[in-house]
Amino acid sequence: MNLVKDVSYQSIRNELQTFRKNNPLIHCITNEVVQEITANVLLAAGASPAMVVGDGEVVDFVRAASALSINVGTPTTERVEIMKMAAKAAVEFHKPWVLDPVAAGGMKWRDKIIFDLLDLSPSAVRGNASEIRFLAGIGKGGKGVDSTDSSESALEAAVQLAQKYSTVVAVTGETDFVTDGSKILRAQGGNVMITKVVGTGCSLSSLMSGFIANNTEAVTSCAACCAYVKKASELAAARSTGPGSFHDNYLDSLYILEPNHWQ
Amino acid sequence: MNLVKDVSYQSIRNELQTFRKNNPLIHCITNEVVQEITANVLLAAGASPAMVVGDGEVVDFVRAASALSINVGTPTTERVEIMKMAAKAAVEFHKPWVLDPVAAGGMKWRDKIIFDLLDLSPSAVRGNASEIRFLAGIGKGGKGVDSTDSSESALEAAVQLAQKYSTVVAVTGETDFVTDGSKILRAQGGNVMITKVVGTGCSLSSLMSGFIANNTEAVTSCAACCAYVKKASELAAARSTGPGSFHDNYLDSLYILEPNHWQ
Amino acid sequence: MNLVKDVSYQSIRNELQTFRKNNPLIHCITNEVVQEITANVLLAAGASPAMVVGDGEVVDFVRAASALSINVGTPTTERVEIMKMAAKAAVEFHKPWVLDPVAAGGMKWRDKIIFDLLDLSPSAVRGNASEIRFLAGIGKGGKGVDSTDSSESALEAAVQLAQKYSTVVAVTGETDFVTDGSKILRAQGGNVMITKVVGTGCSLSSLMSGFIANNTEAVTSCAACCAYVKKASELAAARSTGPGSFHDNYLDSLYILEPNHWQ
Repeated sequence: MNLVKDVSYQSIRNELQTFRKNNPLIHCITNEVVQEITANVLLAAGASPAMVVGDGEVVDFVRAASALSINVGTPTTERVEIMKMAAKAAVEFHKPWVLDPVAAGGMKWRDKIIFDLLDLSPSAVRGNASEIRFLAGIGKGGKGVDSTDSSESALEAAVQLAQKYSTVVAVTGETDFVTDGSKILRAQGGNVMITKVVGTGCSLSSLMSGFIANNTEAVTSCAACCAYVKKASELAAARSTGPGSFHDNYLDSLYILEPNHWQ
Repeated sequence: MNLVKDVSYQSIRNELQTFRKNNPLIHCITNEVVQEITANVLLAAGASPAMVVGDGEVVDFVRAASALSINVGTPTTERVEIMKMAAKAAVEFHKPWVLDPVAAGGMKWRDKIIFDLLDLSPSAVRGNASEIRFLAGIGKGGKGVDSTDSSESALEAAVQLAQKYSTVVAVTGETDFVTDGSKILRAQGGNVMITKVVGTGCSLSSLMSGFIANNTEAVTSCAACCAYVKKASELAAARSTGPGSFHDNYLDSLYILEPNHWQ
Repeated sequence: MNLVKDVSYQSIRNELQTFRKNNPLIHCITNEVVQEITANVLLAAGASPAMVVGDGEVVDFVRAASALSINVGTPTTERVEIMKMAAKAAVEFHKPWVLDPVAAGGMKWRDKIIFDLLDLSPSAVRGNASEIRFLAGIGKGGKGVDSTDSSESALEAAVQLAQKYSTVVAVTGETDFVTDGSKILRAQGGNVMITKVVGTGCSLSSLMSGFIANNTEAVTSCAACCAYVKKASELAAARSTGPGSFHDNYLDSLYILEPNHWQ
């Protein structure tokens, strides 16, 4: 196993600064449940979200956007076709795109969709330990959307998956690990309260696509994104009495955090 | 009319404790508007939500879930077919399922959908007074989704509906009544501010399906669920200045409330 | 150019009072992202929202509702047909309807949809400067959903568009302008934080349809609605530390504000 290193403060500073300067336009094709929080997370962080899903415009919009994010939380036959059109367009137009393989390993129909999308060359895949282990051929997937394994348990799976698909894999949980199959970066911190708010994982995947659009080293961009979100989660939890107040404090913290926080 | 009794503190304690221990996986097929708050209410209360709606996986997921919740707030022809597939699967796999007949009595097309679903043996039906009165053949339904009658006015209708369909009927409003056609349980308290936040009724229906999965007496499980939600609403209102802050305080209160609150 | 006048305090008082007394039932056919905030804004302000989109009931519901709001944020082929059915029904039943032409000028497929809807006689069109300039044939539209021009820059375009389609046009931004092609009313104030919360513009369009249902002078109703929302935004920003807390404070402020605030 390769050496695991914490993502550096300098990387976090640089990546967040570049992200804010770019104000990336992020094209999200996400699930029915998390569209609002995804848009609000992107706005709070400093991006411009757009959820474009019409068959007559999805390809045009990939061309206009800085990055694409695809999340299979609530797939339908029609929406999956749109996802594939968009993913192919992203590759054609050299736009980064991130796949969030929600609940991989839970149902065969969905697993087929996820592997079809994996074959369309995502720039990164972000999932919990169960999902990543399943995609790498290790383990049986989680109960619904929650992970039942620690992220450490999926580290070897993440490396294998990254190598097999020539992509970056982020396995997130109590600790986040991001790998391109060679380098492994870690982001620590955060707070468990984030698991009590729907869409915090999904919106992280979308945010990650905007960080990859920084056009530096993708594994570093993704790990910096994870560290930024973990810090916002920590700050939010310190001011919250439950998941309702956490939701708002999390958005506030994403908004308030500046690159120079990491010194 | 049968004797009306308040759901006991002991029942609320026991039901909430069992619910928290089980951490039920609740399959929600709900309307377009309330998906996020429904997921967040379930997470705050101690369940795992999953909104699975794909035709290739909906039956598989009913089999995996603890309970199913169906809400007809924004029906479309395609989504109604998914609902029927899921309801039939719930009966086949002996999973509890709850029907939320949003705006019953308002439009003929929707009413047909609701009666078709009622014929698929829901474990419980939760609605406001107008909806329950209409389904029982008394009254003409409400203006949109709001009830225009008091819940007391639908008590006789609730009993008749429960008997006709061998189900549990919860009619909620300023006071909540839950009946299996013989026993009638009441939950009092709450706060009117909850009517100013979209999805609080819809998410109650979903939560109720998770309480029925406690596998005790369904009428008691549902009434305990109503009492729990009313208490969270009361606590939230005491700390809120309007519906925005109420929304967050409500989620916080659902999260904070413990079984031993009811002594 | 015609004289620009601030909407009067008396108009705001009268319009908000009538709106609250009417408690309009507002039929929203809006995008996938903003359904919950739209419903919550309408509830907080004093209306009853209903998102009815089924092909078997959409026309019936237009007949029952006080007003209709159509937003093309995430158009799909199927949903656009529903929008057209609804818009035609609104004209037939003499119900006010408002068009929100999200991202007009960005993609040809969407632009065709928007111009088709414009031909169905909306009572009002609300957009940002880029959208209004594009619809009037001036400018190329914005980057996604954000405006890149000041609202002043679209004032002449708004007047031309209002005249061409015999409608009211509201161009909103740092300052809001509302015109019927002859009179021009202005609403000032607000706070830029509102641009960091998704759906605040979309929900304003829906709210506007309920104000037009006051059945006074439409240009005044729309301008009063803008002024009300700007004041709520101002009050919210003064109590907020970021977009998360702003979201809740905005809903609280919409709820708390009374007509006699404007003295």
